[in-house]
Order: sequence, then C-alpha cells, then structure tokens
Amino acid sequence: MTPTLGDPDFLLPERRARIDEVVAQRTLTLTVVMEALCDPQNVNAVLRTCEAFGVQALHVVEGPMKVYDPNKKISQNADKWLDVRRWSSTRDCLGFLKAEGFRIYATHLGQDSVSLGDLSFEPRVALVFGNEHRGVSDEAAALADVNFTIPMFGFSQSFNVSVAAAITLARAVDRRTAERGRHGDLDEGEAQALRERFYSLAVRQRARIAKAERAEAKRERHAKAKAGEP
Amino acid sequence: MTPTLGDPDFLLPERRARIDEVVAQRTLTLTVVMEALCDPQNVNAVLRTCEAFGVQALHVVEGPMKVYDPNKKISQNADKWLDVRRWSSTRDCLGFLKAEGFRIYATHLGQDSVSLGDLSFEPRVALVFGNEHRGVSDEAAALADVNFTIPMFGFSQSFNVSVAAAITLARAVDRRTAERGRHGDLDEGEAQALRERFYSLAVRQRARIAKAERAEAKRERHAKAKAGEP
Repeated sequence: MTPTLGDPDFLLPERRARIDEVVAQRTLTLTVVMEALCDPQNVNAVLRTCEAFGVQALHVVEGPMKVYDPNKKISQNADKWLDVRRWSSTRDCLGFLKAEGFRIYATHLGQDSVSLGDLSFEPRVALVFGNEHRGVSDEAAALADVNFTIPMFGFSQSFNVSVAAAITLARAVDRRTAERGRHGDLDEGEAQALRERFYSLAVRQRARIAKAERAEAKRERHAKAKAGEP
Repeated sequence: MTPTLGDPDFLLPERRARIDEVVAQRTLTLTVVMEALCDPQNVNAVLRTCEAFGVQALHVVEGPMKVYDPNKKISQNADKWLDVRRWSSTRDCLGFLKAEGFRIYATHLGQDSVSLGDLSFEPRVALVFGNEHRGVSDEAAALADVNFTIPMFGFSQSFNVSVAAAITLARAVDRRTAERGRHGDLDEGEAQALRERFYSLAVRQRARIAKAERAEAKRERHAKAKAGEP
C-alpha cells in the first residue's frame, strides 16, 4: 500500500533530505559545557545556538538552580535534536571529557589566559562557560588546558553567557572549517545512527501532528452535526 | 588643596586612563538598529554587547511593547555609556541613517540575501535586527541596501536575536579591523567630547558612591552610639 500523508510512518522525502543535510553538518569533536548556569533563558539560548552550529553533544554541570530539565520545554525543542548529558560535578564532567581526548578551553580571565582569536580548533575541544555571576569555578579554570577570553573594548566586564557562547562557537566553526577543511565530521557509523534516530523522531513528531489533526477534524464534525449541517 | 578620595570631583588617574582607552576603541561608523523587540532581556543583552564592542550609537524603533526605557535600569547601566536614540517609525530611522551615509544591512532571509561572511564593513554600516517572532519588518527589508543571514547548520530556523547581534558584531569588528586597519575611529573632536562626557559621568558616579559611603558611616556611628560604644 502506498503510504499517505495521514500515515504516521510516512516521512516526506524533503524531510528526510533535510535530516541528512543536518547530520552531514553535525560534529562530536566540538562540545560545550555549561557550568552552574542559573537562568533557563540562557541555557535555552546556548542549546539553540549549539543546535544551529551543529554541535551534537553538550554537558550541563548542574549548580544549585537545576536549570536544565529535559522534561520542561525550555529550549523550544532544540534539545530534542541534541545529546545533553547532566553532571553533578565539574571534576567528573571534565575528567570524562579529558579521557575522551578533549582539550578543555574555559572562558576565564587569568594570568595565562589567551585571546579567543588565538585558540586552535584542530584537536577535539570542549568549551566551558560558567555561571552568569561568578563565571567558571576555580576548579574548572584549574582543570582547563587553556583559559581564554573574548576581546572586549568597552566598560562592560563580561558578555551575557549566551552571547559569549555564540561568539565563541561562531569563531570555532570558522576556524574548524579553515583548519580541518570542514566542520561536520561524524564518521559513517555515527552519521547512520544519528540519521536513524532523527528519522524516528521526525516520524513520531509527524504522528503527533496527525493525531492532533484527526482530533481537530472530529471536533469539527461534531460541531457541524450539532448545528444540523451535513 | 590636594583632592582626596572623598572629594567627588576627584577622578583617579586609572579611571581617567580607562576612559581614554575605551574612547579610543569607540566607533560612530558602525551602528545597530533594534526594530520592535519585545523582550527587555534581549534589548539589554544587545546594548551590553554593543558597549563591549565599542559601538557608541544605537537606534531603537519601538514596537507595541515599548521595551526600551532609559529610566529603567534594564541594561546593567551599559546604556549610560551609549547614545541610544528612540524612533517610532522604521522609515524615519532608516531614512535618517541613509541621509547620514550609512548602508543598511538587515538580518533577513530573502531571495537576494547574502551571507554574513560576504558583507563588507568598509562603508558606514547600520545593522538592523528585528522582532523575536516576526524578524525585521517588510519595510526594513525593502529599505535595506543588503539583506543578510548568518549561516546555520541545524534544524533551528533562527538564532536568539541577542545571539544574532553578537555573532554579527563580532564578525563586523574583525572585518573592520582587517579592512580599515582599526575598529575605533572617532575623530579628535568626537573623541574629546566623548572623553569629557565620560569623565563627567564617572565623577557623578563617584559622587554617588561617596554619598552612599558617608550615609553608611553615619549609620554605623549612630548604631555604635546607641550601643554605648565610643
């Protein structure tokens, strides 16, 4: 039987092509750590920016505010397409990333901090962004391979954290493209697994929409019947 | 009489030097237009980003929400150091900027839109960012000399507006430095006027702090007197 638009298993070829295109631009060799953020709007903006820049995996080290709850739809669903791992300890999170071969770059102004423009994105890199008021923890700054700052020219002492993440990620994508020839770099196995996950997510999304449309059509029929219309 | 720290007219040499340094990095040949934004937190973030990037003058075209009120301290005082002009009409605002020799670059996806990376910042440039939900108005897109987009690689259709402004401004500063040799470019008359305004603002700020300190000292004396301490 030919699948129809009402069939929840049906995935439009355009949708499938879009997913393939997105997966081709995804990377697992650049990641972001949000440490103890306190404003969900900032977490949201960072997730959305990462998704838009093809950063597939993120790490949230929870502070006292517990701002990231995957069950609450704070991120306009950007996190649906991402792998967000939650940690209760900075040491554990950064230790894991180091063991995975990531260099840790923390946004922190210290004695040996370098400028964003001088960072290399040739290795695997984890970018650490800290709390809105206190910045990254002393522990994160100490564990980082490099502390870096974004050049600022005014009186302001810091950028909004989502702004800092955006400026850094935009630069990272540019540098990765220049240094590595491309930004998206999943191997074929990773790409295949992610494509299948995204197809399945898209089908479920389609099924939800189809269900909502059927319910709406039913409501309309009832209303018409009540009004005596055919 | 030698000025003392308690003297409100006294401006520490370090503070004066800091002001001179900031003014040397200020520009009036790059500006930002926020059109009908509805979230004060976004307006705040954009003001702070502009201040940090040395963009001295901004334009706010008010939508129905009237989100920018200079009397409300939404911007962590970043706007104290900026010239923010409010407009009720996009046409008037962009008309004024065109008459002042600005090229209008609007963030808008249209048929002839170019990529952020292809923009030149050699001329005077006004960057237009639109409403969080609707983007820039049709009028702004039509009046713009160039419509541009920030390359995106994911499912997200747009960046948060403060994120878009930050990515664009970071790129603009880089390109201006490459194309013009420097970003800050006030002429000596503009620089002198701005330095004096900033000195005066800093002195008033100092006076407010000194007043608060005197009030605090008085409270402490009273409390000690009440407790019978000397």
